[in-house]
Order: sequence, then structure tokens, then C-alpha cells
Amino acid sequence: MSFQKPKGTQDFLPGAVERWQFVEGKAREVCRRFAYREIRTPIFESTELFQRGVGETTDVVEKEMYTFMDKGDRSMTLRPEGTAGVVRAYVENKLYGDPDITKLYYIGPMFRYEQPQAGRYRQFHQFGIEAFGSSDPSLDAEVIALGSQFYTEIGLTGFTLEINSVGTPATRAAFREKLLAFLAPLRDVLCKDCRSRMDRNPLRVLDCKVDQARFEGAPSLLDNLDDDSAAHFEKVKAHLDAMGIAYSINPRLVRGLDYYTHTAFEFKAAGIGSIDTIGGGGRYNGLVSDIGGPEQTGVGFGLGLERVLLVLEKQGVELPATVAPDVYFVALGEAAEARIVPLLNEARARGIVAEKDYGGRKMKAQLKSADRLAAKYAAILGDDELERGEIVLKSLATGEQRTVALASLFDSLK
Amino acid sequence: MSFQKPKGTQDFLPGAVERWQFVEGKAREVCRRFAYREIRTPIFESTELFQRGVGETTDVVEKEMYTFMDKGDRSMTLRPEGTAGVVRAYVENKLYGDPDITKLYYIGPMFRYEQPQAGRYRQFHQFGIEAFGSSDPSLDAEVIALGSQFYTEIGLTGFTLEINSVGTPATRAAFREKLLAFLAPLRDVLCKDCRSRMDRNPLRVLDCKVDQARFEGAPSLLDNLDDDSAAHFEKVKAHLDAMGIAYSINPRLVRGLDYYTHTAFEFKAAGIGSIDTIGGGGRYNGLVSDIGGPEQTGVGFGLGLERVLLVLEKQGVELPATVAPDVYFVALGEAAEARIVPLLNEARARGIVAEKDYGGRKMKAQLKSADRLAAKYAAILGDDELERGEIVLKSLATGEQRTVALASLFDSLK
Repeated sequence: MSFQKPKGTQDFLPGAVERWQFVEGKAREVCRRFAYREIRTPIFESTELFQRGVGETTDVVEKEMYTFMDKGDRSMTLRPEGTAGVVRAYVENKLYGDPDITKLYYIGPMFRYEQPQAGRYRQFHQFGIEAFGSSDPSLDAEVIALGSQFYTEIGLTGFTLEINSVGTPATRAAFREKLLAFLAPLRDVLCKDCRSRMDRNPLRVLDCKVDQARFEGAPSLLDNLDDDSAAHFEKVKAHLDAMGIAYSINPRLVRGLDYYTHTAFEFKAAGIGSIDTIGGGGRYNGLVSDIGGPEQTGVGFGLGLERVLLVLEKQGVELPATVAPDVYFVALGEAAEARIVPLLNEARARGIVAEKDYGGRKMKAQLKSADRLAAKYAAILGDDELERGEIVLKSLATGEQRTVALASLFDSLK
Repeated sequence: MSFQKPKGTQDFLPGAVERWQFVEGKAREVCRRFAYREIRTPIFESTELFQRGVGETTDVVEKEMYTFMDKGDRSMTLRPEGTAGVVRAYVENKLYGDPDITKLYYIGPMFRYEQPQAGRYRQFHQFGIEAFGSSDPSLDAEVIALGSQFYTEIGLTGFTLEINSVGTPATRAAFREKLLAFLAPLRDVLCKDCRSRMDRNPLRVLDCKVDQARFEGAPSLLDNLDDDSAAHFEKVKAHLDAMGIAYSINPRLVRGLDYYTHTAFEFKAAGIGSIDTIGGGGRYNGLVSDIGGPEQTGVGFGLGLERVLLVLEKQGVELPATVAPDVYFVALGEAAEARIVPLLNEARARGIVAEKDYGGRKMKAQLKSADRLAAKYAAILGDDELERGEIVLKSLATGEQRTVALASLFDSLK
């Protein structure tokens, strides 16, 4: 009997996992400088949380969740996205009681039962940030700036930013009527998804990739904003301008989820096919109270790491691979082997990346391993050297070798 | 409606999450030096994998797994431990084809439906290593040395190491008969668990915490080892001696899982109550072929991070908390605010940890925030400074302040 990983999941193996470590390390480092702090919430949550926090009429909740009953007969769901759990934790742990605003980031696995395809997996990984407690447009701009800084530092080039304002629920309710009047005569020619969205959430119709051409002349939410929303949007744009962050305005941009207010934005990358979004977010002033919290505003950003790594690969960006040992110890004979083991351990305790052979192989095979691992030095110990208290240090780049006293080995390696 | 995290799970919030980051960072750093490379396997796997890899008669598989049917009607289980998935990935990805041995580590969440109690959660987190492809006793010793180095570097003190050899399946089969002969007259006085174990896996009876006193005079597996096992064990001990790693021999130590061969070991810490094990492992030469792979040996080590963090806390070890900003920008008035936003962004792009107010608060409140966050400097910009192209830099430790040109702000901050 042999076992396979579940369909739509991946193993991240040495040689590839280092790319993940690099990108995640950059995410953490950028967050540190922007004063966002990590939060880790459980891998599964009560199913109702996602129904409420993501939206019962979304594809995610309707079709794609990993939902199961636990042994205590509670309905649990593997988190399909990161925001709902973070908002739940913000409310449950009363982080809003802090006199300062709360700036959080998360990195981790998410789960959606979708048809696997290039860059889309059933277990995928997101990096996201959420900032609660301020309506200041400079915070919207900061969230966008953090995203931009992250893409820049991982080496991505040629990415673009689209922004929009989706106003307030009141703005949208008024606009909804205007839009429905425009869409009504089109109903019969629109795609199935569009028709279903017309009934449930007409604004998302304009988001449709299929019917985009039919929406020429559709009324624009941006032209119908209330004064406060318009002023907020103007300030966000002014801050982006001041930071030198380029953007274009996309009045059709409404994002997939229902809880956004004011700012919505997406980063896009060219050259990865039709689905070119590499991250996005926006303001969601209603979400915290929606899931039982106080009236606290929020703004956030999230991205799928699989997608970002795919773009880096397509752009030919070189990422770190394996860590090469500083030294590979070669023992010749049993007495030498017995002496190598504590030397190896001492090297590692001193901060040196060190390796040895574990197969009792001949010197040639051991040196081949050292080469394959791209070790900087081979440290070779035979019976003669052992007797004299010495060891041979060979540079694997130049082939140059010298004999050093065992007692000064670690100084010689520095 | 308000939501709670699922019973037995935790939120890791800023202020506590930094402890996790520290311990995980040390784990990664020690693994790097010991030339172990990260592997990440899926959060869920097919249920049969754990039935086979963990053992169908174990408590974990019998009672504690989060098992569910996915939408494709396949039985999936949230991983209850790390080894089975790593071995599955090692086999499926044919890592054994590598000419060198394979040394892997993993860190991540695991899931068991247990009664929550102090330090025991339904979602918990493990760090573990697995080395495949060598029977060399120096590898057993290395795995133990890595554990010891990890505990040392996170600041744990006073931990001890117990080791044993559980021999080979053939050794154990012979010993089993001897042991059953010893246990037979005791059957009626032993605890329920022991009686059940007598039928399924008599060696684990000796592991019982309840009946330990009744086992005085029980035959010892260590006295009944075959010659090869005894020689292997002698070499492991010699390597540990050479590395200066202290240990005691515990002939009763058999570990909870069935697949161990030769070396078994546990690290213990004093002063955390009756369950004092903080990590353990051993050699499992049969596991790889058990789950459908080739005849490849393995040796590994694992620990629960919740337990380790609990011991660190009880020992009063100071761990890093929050990152303090290098500079907190204070804007006085709208024009200053507009200028602060790009300055803040530039600071962060230059590697400086920087923060500002997002509430339009008065200077006093902003400086209070800066103090609360333990910022090193406040950089204060009012209309006058703005006009002169200057900014006031105030040390929050000393209260000392000076005016610097905006153009040289970042040099001044260094």
C-alpha cells in the first residue's frame, strides 16, 4: 500500500521550500517596519463565523468550504480565508480596548474545495494585514504602501495598482437602484453568474470577467459617491501621490467580498495569463460589528503566496535555494569517526553550518557529497592527523589545502 | 451574535506571539547548522495514512483524530502528528533517490480531539526532525544532540535526557513472551489501560504511569537485546559521551508509538508537574516500508512547542516581546500630516521601524502613544518646522531634543 498527498495539496520540499521561507521572511520584515504585529488564529473555526464574516451568498461559503462536525457535534470549517478569524480574535480578545489602533498581520494555510489548476490549490497560503480602529485615509494609504513595499522587496517588477471607492452602504443602496435600471434590459444576454448576482448583489455584476464588454455606459459608483466618501477617496489618492505610489482608478473594482466600504484596491502583474490579480484589499467598516464586535473600522490587504511565487518564477527572479554547509567533515577510519562526531557538534554549537557522512563511505565518495552540497571546506581527519592532533582543511572552491591544529580548527574556519 | 474560538484552540496575540517567533526561529537556526532542511506537508492527509503510520491500536487513532469526509467522499484527517506525513512525502517524492541521506525538519499545527487542560490543546504545535537513509549510530546521536542544542539555545536549564534501546522486532517478539510470563499473575491488579495493553502491545505496559511500582523485577528489554542492537546502543552512548551530552539509561522507556527500533529517548524537565517529558524520539527502521516505501531506515525527534513554552515560562526565562519603533512621527496640523505620510513610508523603505498616529490626536496624546510603544525617538513636525524644512527629533529615553533638516532626518536616526 502506498499513499499520496490529498488532491489539490502540495508538499514543499527542500530546494523549493527556501523560496517560501524567503518570501515569508520578507513579509515579516516589512510588517515589522510598518509596525504590524503577527496574530495566529486557529486553522478551523465555527462554520457560522465564515457564513457571517465572508458572506452566505459567496461562492466560497456556498460551495467551497471544508466543513465537518467535530466529535462534540459542532460544525467546524477549515478557514477559507484569513480576515474572519482575525476579526473574531480582535473582538473576542477585546483588542479594541487598547488605546492605540491595532495593526495585525497573518501568514498561513487556508482551505477551499476548488477544482485544482495551475497556481490554485485546495490548501493554499495567504499573507494578509488588518488594521482596526481608525478611519484615517492615511491608514488606507499605508496598507497599500505596505503591499507595494512587499512586492518591491521580494523582487517583483512591473506590478500595477488599481484603486476605487465603493462608498458606504447608504451610497451603495442608492446606486444599486440606478444600476439595476441599467442592467434590467440586459438580463437575458448576461451570463448565468451575472443573472444570479443581479438578484443577490448587483454591484458584483460589474466585476464579471465574461460580460465586461456589455457594461460600457453602465453608471459608475465613483460618480455617485456621497460627499464624505468622495473626500476620503481624495485624501487616499493625495497620500499615494505624496509617497510616489503610482495607481490607476478602476471604477468597476468592487472586490469579491461584501463587506468593503470606501477604499478597494488590487495589485496586478502582467504576463501570468488572464487572472492577473496578485493581491488586494480595502476598507471594511461594517465587518467588526457584523460579527458581534463594537463599531470599529477596519482596513486590510491580503494575497495568495502561491500566485506571488508563480509570478516571481515567470519573471525569472532568482530566489535563495539551499543553505550550503560551511564545512563537511570527512573521517577516515573508526578512530577518526569517533573524534569527528564531537567536533561536528562543537562546530554547530559555535554557529557553523556543518555536515558529515553517515554511511561509512570512502574518502572519494565523501568528498563528492561535500561538492554536491556546495560545502565551502572539507575537513579531513585520518589516523595520522589524529595522532598529531591536526586536521586537513581543503577549500572545495580552489582545491587548496592546508593542515591546521585541531585546537585551532574553528578559528581557521572563520 | 458573537463568536468564540473553538474549544481547545488558542489565539496567539501580539505580546505573546513573539515568544513563539523566538522559539521557532531558534529551531530553524539550529536545524540550519545541523544541515536539516524544512519540509511542509499538508494539514490534512488521507485517514488511512495515520491508521498505518501512527498505528491503529493507538489512542490517537482510536479516539482523538479529526476525521471528516471531503466533498469528493474521501476520508481525510487533520494530522495528529508530524512523522506520518513527512514519511509519506519522503516516499511519494522519492527523496530516497538522492545519493545523500535526507535530513528534514517540520514546524506546524497538529490536531487531536482531547480534553483540553493546562498546556494541552486540540490544535497544538510541534517541531520535529526526521533523518532517513542511514543506520549509523552517529546519526542517532546527532538527532539527540540537535534536541539538546535547541533546548540550550532557547534558554532552558536543568533538562535531562533518558535513553534506551528497544532492539529489533525480532528481539521484541522474543522478549514479549518473557514479559507476558511476568505480567500474567499481575493481570487482575493492573489498571484498565495496562490490561488492554497486555493484549495489544505488552511492552507499553511498562510505560504506565499508574502501575510503575508493580513492575519492580520485571524483565528488562535492555538485558535481552541481540548482539547488533547491543553494539548499536554502545556506539550511540560513546558518541554522546564524546560530545559531552549527559544521559541516564531508562530500560522502561519504550515511547508511545509502535514503530521504534533501536534507540528511544526522551528529554525531561523538572518542576512542571507529573508529565515532565518535553520531547523525544528514536529510530524507526520499519516505518518507511510500512507505508509503502523502500527499505529505508529513519530516526527522528519531536516536541510539543506549547509544553516547551510552558517550561520556559515556569523557569522565568525572559523571551523577546514586542518590537519597539525606532521613530514615532508626530504631525501637528494637516499640512504636516500630509508631509509625514511619505516620510514615514521612506523611513520604512530604508529599514527603519516607524509609526505614527492615525487618530488626528493632539501632540500630548501622540507622545503618550510613542512612549507606550517604547519608541526610541519622536519626530515632531509642525507648521513652523515644515516651512523651514526641519523636524524636531526627541529622544524618548532622555527627553533631549534637537532640530534637524528634513533632508538629513534618516542620517540623524542612524
